[in-house]
Amino acid sequence: MATPVYSGGARAPQRGRPRDASRDDALRQAALEVMAEVGYRALTMDAVASRARAGKATIYRRWESKLDLVIDTCTQLASQNLPEPDTGSLAGDLREFLSSLAAFLSGPVGKAAQALVGELPHEPELATAFRETFLIAQRDVLRRILERADHRGELRPEAPRGLAVELAGAALIYRLMLTGDPLDVAFVERVVDQVLLPLVAGGQ
Amino acid sequence: MATPVYSGGARAPQRGRPRDASRDDALRQAALEVMAEVGYRALTMDAVASRARAGKATIYRRWESKLDLVIDTCTQLASQNLPEPDTGSLAGDLREFLSSLAAFLSGPVGKAAQALVGELPHEPELATAFRETFLIAQRDVLRRILERADHRGELRPEAPRGLAVELAGAALIYRLMLTGDPLDVAFVERVVDQVLLPLVAGGQ
Repeated sequence: MATPVYSGGARAPQRGRPRDASRDDALRQAALEVMAEVGYRALTMDAVASRARAGKATIYRRWESKLDLVIDTCTQLASQNLPEPDTGSLAGDLREFLSSLAAFLSGPVGKAAQALVGELPHEPELATAFRETFLIAQRDVLRRILERADHRGELRPEAPRGLAVELAGAALIYRLMLTGDPLDVAFVERVVDQVLLPLVAGGQ
Repeated sequence: MATPVYSGGARAPQRGRPRDASRDDALRQAALEVMAEVGYRALTMDAVASRARAGKATIYRRWESKLDLVIDTCTQLASQNLPEPDTGSLAGDLREFLSSLAAFLSGPVGKAAQALVGELPHEPELATAFRETFLIAQRDVLRRILERADHRGELRPEAPRGLAVELAGAALIYRLMLTGDPLDVAFVERVVDQVLLPLVAGGQ
């Protein structure tokens, strides 16, 4: 289960110069907006700086490349917006987490992620970083939800956990990026009740 | 179930001038290669013409725009490469069709489709055409597979067919475009046996 973790991201604060976290967030927000509008390939550090009314040097002090900035932005947003529920039941945890994830993906992050996905075949570094941050953040929460359910005796002995985690992500991403059908609570509940629980939950 | 169908595509043959179908295929193949390499936005009719060693006028006689060319290419390739199995059992049909689809998506069409997906949020006409051709082609085959299974009495009375069709596409696309894990026969069999059949098949 050990997973290599992308080692980039925001630089450590420079000596004697405390980092302003809210400034970092404003820069990430600008990066997200630019990416949602023009995609990864057309994004420039200049455009992000101009959107955030910052100097380009300000950005380069924090992130050494466009790739660093984009991946750190996705990672930070995912960690800030994907709270890990612990409702005491597998059904409750899955519904709550997947509803949060659906809401998160329906915003500008979803558009930015979709623009990134189109670039992955041509950008191997981006592909690796995207998989090791954005995808793994959601996968890890789902794995821990299943782990806790297992400790409570809620899973079948041979429950295919990896497949359940994969399908949960697949169902949401397919609506978001391919069909364009709504990522609403009704859909999340159908996926949880008709697909995920039958796949992994034990008979009571 | 009536679905609006994209009305573009290759033009009808001009009067007195028979169309050369193999020439059309060579032009589509060139379009596919260029799109897999540079994506939709950067694709130009000039680049396609040059790849196919054809004049630009030759291309414009057949397709009136880049959008027409790209969508017609995806549609034709899908119809040529996605034979509809009729093995006499739901399990057999699903395995055979999804294995063909996985193989088809693992080639250049998958890369081209991924490049298109990244552009959908910024290109509403492309998004509509992509959904009404590429996505509907696979969805319709799956619907007919379930329909035949129902006539043979293989489905549960309340089987959520739409959800099954959606998950089948989602599982393949997520591997192809997001995780990069292999789209192999073993994966297709797990999806069919552990997810799709339990979702829709009746107890024997």
